[in-house]
Amino acid sequence: MNAPASAQPFLPPTQSRPVPTTLLDDLKLRFGAQFSTAQVVREQHGRDESAFSLPPPDAVVFAQSTQDVADAVKLAARHKVPVIAFGVGSSLEGHLLAVQGGISIDVSRMNQVLAIHAEDLTAKVQPGVTRKQLNEAVKSTGLFFPIDPGADATLGGMAATRASGTNAVRYGTMRENVLALEVVTAQGEVIHTGTRAKKSSAGYDLTRLMVGSEGTLGIMTEVTVKLYPLPEAVMAATCSFASLADAVNATIQIIQLGVPIARCELLDAKTIRMVNTHSHLSLQEAAMLLMEFHGSPANVQEQVETVQAIAAEHGGQAFEWASTPEARTKLWTARHNAYFAGIQSRPGCRAITTDTCVPISHLADALLDSVREAEQSGIPYFLVGHVGDGNFHMGYLIDPDSETERATAEQLNTQLVQRALKLGGTCTGEHGVGLHKMGFLEEETGAGAVAMMRRIKQALDPDNILNPGKIFTLC
Amino acid sequence: MNAPASAQPFLPPTQSRPVPTTLLDDLKLRFGAQFSTAQVVREQHGRDESAFSLPPPDAVVFAQSTQDVADAVKLAARHKVPVIAFGVGSSLEGHLLAVQGGISIDVSRMNQVLAIHAEDLTAKVQPGVTRKQLNEAVKSTGLFFPIDPGADATLGGMAATRASGTNAVRYGTMRENVLALEVVTAQGEVIHTGTRAKKSSAGYDLTRLMVGSEGTLGIMTEVTVKLYPLPEAVMAATCSFASLADAVNATIQIIQLGVPIARCELLDAKTIRMVNTHSHLSLQEAAMLLMEFHGSPANVQEQVETVQAIAAEHGGQAFEWASTPEARTKLWTARHNAYFAGIQSRPGCRAITTDTCVPISHLADALLDSVREAEQSGIPYFLVGHVGDGNFHMGYLIDPDSETERATAEQLNTQLVQRALKLGGTCTGEHGVGLHKMGFLEEETGAGAVAMMRRIKQALDPDNILNPGKIFTLC
Repeated sequence: MNAPASAQPFLPPTQSRPVPTTLLDDLKLRFGAQFSTAQVVREQHGRDESAFSLPPPDAVVFAQSTQDVADAVKLAARHKVPVIAFGVGSSLEGHLLAVQGGISIDVSRMNQVLAIHAEDLTAKVQPGVTRKQLNEAVKSTGLFFPIDPGADATLGGMAATRASGTNAVRYGTMRENVLALEVVTAQGEVIHTGTRAKKSSAGYDLTRLMVGSEGTLGIMTEVTVKLYPLPEAVMAATCSFASLADAVNATIQIIQLGVPIARCELLDAKTIRMVNTHSHLSLQEAAMLLMEFHGSPANVQEQVETVQAIAAEHGGQAFEWASTPEARTKLWTARHNAYFAGIQSRPGCRAITTDTCVPISHLADALLDSVREAEQSGIPYFLVGHVGDGNFHMGYLIDPDSETERATAEQLNTQLVQRALKLGGTCTGEHGVGLHKMGFLEEETGAGAVAMMRRIKQALDPDNILNPGKIFTLC
Repeated sequence: MNAPASAQPFLPPTQSRPVPTTLLDDLKLRFGAQFSTAQVVREQHGRDESAFSLPPPDAVVFAQSTQDVADAVKLAARHKVPVIAFGVGSSLEGHLLAVQGGISIDVSRMNQVLAIHAEDLTAKVQPGVTRKQLNEAVKSTGLFFPIDPGADATLGGMAATRASGTNAVRYGTMRENVLALEVVTAQGEVIHTGTRAKKSSAGYDLTRLMVGSEGTLGIMTEVTVKLYPLPEAVMAATCSFASLADAVNATIQIIQLGVPIARCELLDAKTIRMVNTHSHLSLQEAAMLLMEFHGSPANVQEQVETVQAIAAEHGGQAFEWASTPEARTKLWTARHNAYFAGIQSRPGCRAITTDTCVPISHLADALLDSVREAEQSGIPYFLVGHVGDGNFHMGYLIDPDSETERATAEQLNTQLVQRALKLGGTCTGEHGVGLHKMGFLEEETGAGAVAMMRRIKQALDPDNILNPGKIFTLC
């Protein structure tokens, strides 16, 4: 399959806009020790988990308050200099890279849990709070925050990329779980979107417009999210299958039957091998579903029985249970480390990661052909999937110095994305467009939708200072 | 409590923009029998369930296809004449009223269910399909569409107002249940937003931006929604309480415990009396919760036991069960007719309807004081509530010829809204802003958020032809 020109992955330009010395002086004056132009600090803020290598931002501001963010944006706006929000740098798609230079606004010190409204199942946090930190903070209330993209990402970064992860099949994504935001606009003004009410029809849904806008429409300075009662009973299990197809078809049936499964994750045999090596485990090296069930004890039991029957129909065997918190933590840590296990399986490599999501009935078509193509290419890869959502990731483990390997991996990704689009899916289920999926957005949504996005961007950020050069080009 | 000027309900201007004869000629030429300027047709398209009386639109186009909508918009755009989408006219907030004149585009003939993807739990419909029609169409698949605002509204209208209703406490609102849209823009172009994938991070969330935009950013011509497996067991029940406070406090506890109740509705004693008269029933004339439980038989049983225990703690009595479809239909028909029962209780009246939604812990504060104020006013009213969501409606039943009654009702609504906003809630949980809540939007969201909405509107519809004069003023 040859990719048409429109679907080529985007190669970011590296032409920086000029950053006047007067701006750096003004920032230094305003922020003192919270401001740095040191090479090492800039470089820390100039790379993420993508396979792109680009020059770092010109300077870094360590914001400690909404006012800090607003002031930094206002100063940069005066000189039309880019500003890029930075959390913990766990983006996989180049979101935080300074493709046009500019100022990185690091919000990791804005890490206060501002309010826990246990009585309303909501919490308000600063954008630098990570998901683990939030869960630690609400532990004593009997509530939890379910969204779990694997990395201990910040809530700001997760909201900005519309992240999801292993629990989304039951609890939804950041789209469903962010209730309200405080946002600094391109003009350095502070606005509020949404309320703590569970539902609202009050005007345009600015909350959902900001969620997933990848820092291009505003910088989030407060995030109000939903919490959920900790389930009375939790049961995790692994189940091995003779083939990937069997595991995928079992998943499809689980979802079609409406089983309210909390997590339904796929790993292939190769990836299990990597995980075993990395985490010193002895999981059976076969296609495997990792599942978790939440509910009352009786309800969990019902779900388990249904899923066992479905798995058996597809030759599933070796059900292994993890009912204690320790056993579950071990299992999910292994799953979360799959990415790093993959990276470590080939020293010096970088991962080019895929992120398609398709309607559940097409999951087998989307996944199995992609695996076949990867096998034929000879490029090492790992495969993990939030398959309950129709979303899976292949990580092509390339030698970053080999242009051939990079081109092969990009070609594999292009074929995989085009297959997903033909099946009614999306090029990115949860990572965001960033730089890496820019070449696919128009093919997915059509030129009209991208033109509408451009008009919104130009209306809200006429000087294009908010994380420029991401999601789509402006011309 | 005196309302500040900023929170006065909006009084719509009635200055029409000129509609040139050439436009009417062009529309007649293009649409033939699908076009009408007959007074009776215009008047049918110039009123809804709100208490406003305004001049009707200048003409009506009966669209039968996306191309019809696009062509009508293009012709109107040439003369900068307003276009207003019309479904079945069940808006409660004046959404479809021609405050600046213009062309009503009636989409009720675009009533085809275009695709049912039972294997993916999705359906694609034209905007004139009603919720009952969709449920009829999917009945044989074992799936259903849960969003139920009471009226048999069109899916287009429900999406445009971000509607919800009785099932939202478990299944969410149109915000959570619209996956993708086809939309005609202000330029008459056809764009697509979203895919059938369950989740996506591909660019700005234009789907959610359109949902709830009340026809001011585009006219929906296709709506793709989620479906759900029909629950294995369904049980409905009513429970009476000695006081409104007891019923509300029981509700708060049900939600805080995370019971996955499907419906949790409140009616007060007065409203029950109206419903009994209207529907020839003999429900106990006391504050009552109407509830519905979905799940497996065992799971429903668990929910019922939990809720019974909570209700008992709050003095709930006379639990009455409706487990057959017929008994449930009777119960919910009575609930859905509460609005009309209210209207008929005072011949010749119009209802001024409230729609606040607050964080669940504040529901008692929001509701009980509002009832007290209504009692003191002497204006007759009905009270129904999607209380599981923190959302309730009072309908002040006014003599439309009495300016005193209208002013009193508006003052009651203003006090009720301001109370909800102070409690962290919204002026509209599900009806939309339309005309009637325009005076409250800025107080709820702040001037910055409204300014951002304006910039988006001006960017996408620079000539302000899409349902102008709704949600916010442009200057």
